[in-house]
Amino acid sequence: MQIAQALDDLTQVLGERLSRSKSDLDQHGHSESHFPVTPPDAVAYPQTAQEVRRIVQICATHGVPVIGWGAGTSLEGHGLAVRGGVVVDFMHMNKVLEIRPADMDVTVQPGVTREALNQELRASGLFFPVDPGANASLGGMAMTRASGTTTVRYGSMRDNVLGLQAVLADGRVIRTGTRARKSASGYDLTALFVGSEGTLGLVTELTLKLHGIPEATSAGICSFPDMASAVAAVQETIQMGIPMARIEFACADTARAFNAYAGTDMAEAPHLMVEFHGSPDSVAEDAARFAEIVQDHDGSPFRWSVKEEERRALWALRHNGYYAILASRPGARALVTDICVPISRLAQAVEETQHDIAASPLPGPILGHVGDGNFHAVLLLDPDRHDQLEAAKALSHRMGLRALQLGGTITGEHGIGMGKTGLMEAEHGEAWDVMGQIKKALDPQNIMNPGKLLRGN
Amino acid sequence: MQIAQALDDLTQVLGERLSRSKSDLDQHGHSESHFPVTPPDAVAYPQTAQEVRRIVQICATHGVPVIGWGAGTSLEGHGLAVRGGVVVDFMHMNKVLEIRPADMDVTVQPGVTREALNQELRASGLFFPVDPGANASLGGMAMTRASGTTTVRYGSMRDNVLGLQAVLADGRVIRTGTRARKSASGYDLTALFVGSEGTLGLVTELTLKLHGIPEATSAGICSFPDMASAVAAVQETIQMGIPMARIEFACADTARAFNAYAGTDMAEAPHLMVEFHGSPDSVAEDAARFAEIVQDHDGSPFRWSVKEEERRALWALRHNGYYAILASRPGARALVTDICVPISRLAQAVEETQHDIAASPLPGPILGHVGDGNFHAVLLLDPDRHDQLEAAKALSHRMGLRALQLGGTITGEHGIGMGKTGLMEAEHGEAWDVMGQIKKALDPQNIMNPGKLLRGN
Repeated sequence: MQIAQALDDLTQVLGERLSRSKSDLDQHGHSESHFPVTPPDAVAYPQTAQEVRRIVQICATHGVPVIGWGAGTSLEGHGLAVRGGVVVDFMHMNKVLEIRPADMDVTVQPGVTREALNQELRASGLFFPVDPGANASLGGMAMTRASGTTTVRYGSMRDNVLGLQAVLADGRVIRTGTRARKSASGYDLTALFVGSEGTLGLVTELTLKLHGIPEATSAGICSFPDMASAVAAVQETIQMGIPMARIEFACADTARAFNAYAGTDMAEAPHLMVEFHGSPDSVAEDAARFAEIVQDHDGSPFRWSVKEEERRALWALRHNGYYAILASRPGARALVTDICVPISRLAQAVEETQHDIAASPLPGPILGHVGDGNFHAVLLLDPDRHDQLEAAKALSHRMGLRALQLGGTITGEHGIGMGKTGLMEAEHGEAWDVMGQIKKALDPQNIMNPGKLLRGN
Repeated sequence: MQIAQALDDLTQVLGERLSRSKSDLDQHGHSESHFPVTPPDAVAYPQTAQEVRRIVQICATHGVPVIGWGAGTSLEGHGLAVRGGVVVDFMHMNKVLEIRPADMDVTVQPGVTREALNQELRASGLFFPVDPGANASLGGMAMTRASGTTTVRYGSMRDNVLGLQAVLADGRVIRTGTRARKSASGYDLTALFVGSEGTLGLVTELTLKLHGIPEATSAGICSFPDMASAVAAVQETIQMGIPMARIEFACADTARAFNAYAGTDMAEAPHLMVEFHGSPDSVAEDAARFAEIVQDHDGSPFRWSVKEEERRALWALRHNGYYAILASRPGARALVTDICVPISRLAQAVEETQHDIAASPLPGPILGHVGDGNFHAVLLLDPDRHDQLEAAKALSHRMGLRALQLGGTITGEHGIGMGKTGLMEAEHGEAWDVMGQIKKALDPQNIMNPGKLLRGN
């Protein structure tokens, strides 16, 4: 790695948009999670795909790592320059390039955040549904195969990226996918890049599916005596074909944290928060049918509303879940981990996880996207206590192994990054080597986000 | 290639299940389409993944091509042994291994056909929706990324394969995906294998999503003065969020062929055939709202029914479309081609294609999955007239280029096989080379279905 020469060359291309200021390096050395601070050698702020290409070419010439950066909201350290190198921050590539209402699709630059996109779409009657909670960048969401609260209805980034433009490790710029809704034309490179965590290339453009803003929305909340009853209610709802747009679980500890944080008076019991999209008639019918199912499973009365302010309050509560839980222990940091299992095993997965956490020194409220079988544990720890971090990591590791035993995956939506490579062999076996072969074929120097996702990388 | 030694070794493993009979070789040298007959050197009939592994290992040792074979319904020559070698026919690997109603998923061997699967599922209240028309094998459907009439609602094989087991060119057996509904764990190898046309490995097991059989179904048909009106009606239906389960287009020539073949009395005009799934109330409401939209776009009255025998008759008609069209010209063979475009360009794509066909010496009725922007031209030709085959190929080639100009793809569901490699450069550019790099990394000897999908392969 010849970093000095690379930085000189990059400055020629980018001028002041190649930053080595301490504040920039520090900011891009931090993650939202527990990882050690690892500032890169420089931060590049490209404005065009052509500049991204030049950055990658220069870094390739000098063997310098290249790491993409969106909104910095990753939970598994995806953006950290663990082998040094140049972080490419896409904040200036934040244009919505073209909205095509007739085809319900949009082309964006990777630095557009999901909230900014939905703001621009407002007049079109369309929206982009994938909602991981954080106001992440769409490039980052694509690279981690993000999902979230609406995935049960609208799918994840896997389902909503029609195509993309990427700069490869050797500077080639490729396009994958088209604007057709489906294709049988060759290997699905779009799907290969979505979720590749910047290890195969940098995405410089995305074409996304859009959806019609529903004519009507209903949303509500109810509690259950235990997790198993809540999950049984969800299973029955799915099997009856009642189309939920969101179905979120919050454990008793999370409800307590909500009460303290937001002044709510939720029962300290497992809760479901549910939303339906459709016509005024259908969302009322869906809510009423769901209320009956809840009653059959010993739930509390399902309180629901079609009023926007009540729905907003409900989802603001849910979206603040992470911060409410953090605030329940002042000074704490969190290791937030996630797994995803077949829904028939979800109650077992949550209950075993709760027992495991209860036997540990750490608090760990649980919340999740129960319609997908996906849940998070927010493991709270004292940042100065190494033993607590180790305990949290061990809990997360056991959660991953438990997910695999139950037929699931070590991460439903946070990705691998540097946090879960230790579980990849257990999930994928020799298929992990296949990922490595693909990586090596496309990035033999290993300059694209090294230290993430792959074996020994 | 040391074929003789390979066949000896294979006979040791398979006994009589390695066939060199003329009838077997002939049968596996034919496709449903126009390609020259190319019998393989042998046909293997494995019963287990372990046997598939041994077959691949022996073929790898001797540099012999290995080509998978499902139901033989491919339209782009995917199963033809164009460089000789061994066709692996999965007819004995036709077990439904495990149905899991609580998780709405199923694990099958690749030789199970979609109709056989749905027969086995009948008691469960669940079904597998992907419906390409032909009673294809699920392994073949996965390998060509098949879709069909219900994709507008339930997605294609891309969306309905949760995971798979595959034997790679070097004999490694890998598993991709899990039974979790979503995952952010590493590269999406499931999506890479789905649609890879047997060029990366042979699939020996599939885990598929299932869906609840709808409580109620309504279906109906109507005609339009022109294609543009029909497409405008579909666009409005989609934008209003009316959830169509099927929406099929048939051109005036296709309607004429239906009349001759099935004794119907359809107007010789463009038609839509539509189906809705839901509750008794919702499917009636959906059909009524659709009928209004049709009227607004100058369509004929939308005649619809919830009665099973009427719906069955409608879809039997549609599924016999290919045979009805073939029968319209006795002795003809067909080159069936497909493209897929953004829906706003669908009317233009169909109309330009119709003009192009009208200027050619060939009849070419059009039908398709209009909700996806996907349509087929059934180009009828005299099998003894080389010039007609060349004219059909030229029409198909221009259709592919037209699809690309309109933002679409050269094939929505038939795949590349040996029929569309000539359009891959135009669609993918350097991304086609990326496919080649992946192929080379995993199959450096090029023994897995050579001559298909890839450049110079």
